[in-house]
Amino acid sequence: MSSCTPCRLPYSAPLWTTNRISWRLRGIEENKTFSINFPSAEMMEKTDYCGLVSGKDTDKAALFDVYYGELKTAPMINECPLSLECRLVTTVTNPTNNFYIGEIIASYTEEKYLTDDKPDIKKINPLLLTMPDNCYWTIGECAGNAWSCGKKLIKK
Amino acid sequence: MSSCTPCRLPYSAPLWTTNRISWRLRGIEENKTFSINFPSAEMMEKTDYCGLVSGKDTDKAALFDVYYGELKTAPMINECPLSLECRLVTTVTNPTNNFYIGEIIASYTEEKYLTDDKPDIKKINPLLLTMPDNCYWTIGECAGNAWSCGKKLIKK
Repeated sequence: MSSCTPCRLPYSAPLWTTNRISWRLRGIEENKTFSINFPSAEMMEKTDYCGLVSGKDTDKAALFDVYYGELKTAPMINECPLSLECRLVTTVTNPTNNFYIGEIIASYTEEKYLTDDKPDIKKINPLLLTMPDNCYWTIGECAGNAWSCGKKLIKK
Repeated sequence: MSSCTPCRLPYSAPLWTTNRISWRLRGIEENKTFSINFPSAEMMEKTDYCGLVSGKDTDKAALFDVYYGELKTAPMINECPLSLECRLVTTVTNPTNNFYIGEIIASYTEEKYLTDDKPDIKKINPLLLTMPDNCYWTIGECAGNAWSCGKKLIKK
């Protein structure tokens, strides 16, 4: 288990949406809080396991070192390089699932995942999921700078 | 300009959310339709340009070969390897922006982006954006199979 102390990042953040139907949503609706935890590629097997079993039958939290932030009720995963702690703002009920829209109250990472005091996605090394081929992918190379590389197309 | 004929993929798809405030949202609210177009890394400069200028002053569509699908009013970009055509279902009004939740009516790609009749993210070669470092990234390598690689952690 990692013994890191998560640190709070100095960024305000927009609203966030999640749309999973699962046992753990009972916690969201009871506490009006939730967290979003970004697993690294090194955590792939544990992450996949969490998608294979239900929290109704299995204590998934036992796999991880869990901590709580300032909202006190949103469990976060210490091993994850980035975690977002959210306060539930709105629930949108759809025919097949619910969308939970939250305000990000705090974000947590470790110094080793930062470059120039900003989260470094290559250090975080998150997993991406594609369907229907059901593959996990890592991040590739930096292709260019946003709000910058397109300036050459602006007509003077 | 590409001369491809987009083909419809045989997948039903879930609801989708977008949360941009911009000139083009007038089209969403008037027509109750919208599209989501995934640019490839080769389209990075044009994509970035679209984030630098407002549709209020600039005809961004002139940069692309635009087509319409079965909803007739959601413009899609032919050069994009994957486009999703959506019918607006719900608008969630937040303090700083709106969330537009749509049903995906059809998805469009080309044969060259498929492997075994499924979209192949390495062929699509999409751009990913990180903030606040404002970088575009490509997809890296396949790290493993989802709903599979975690089975070894399930206790018999």
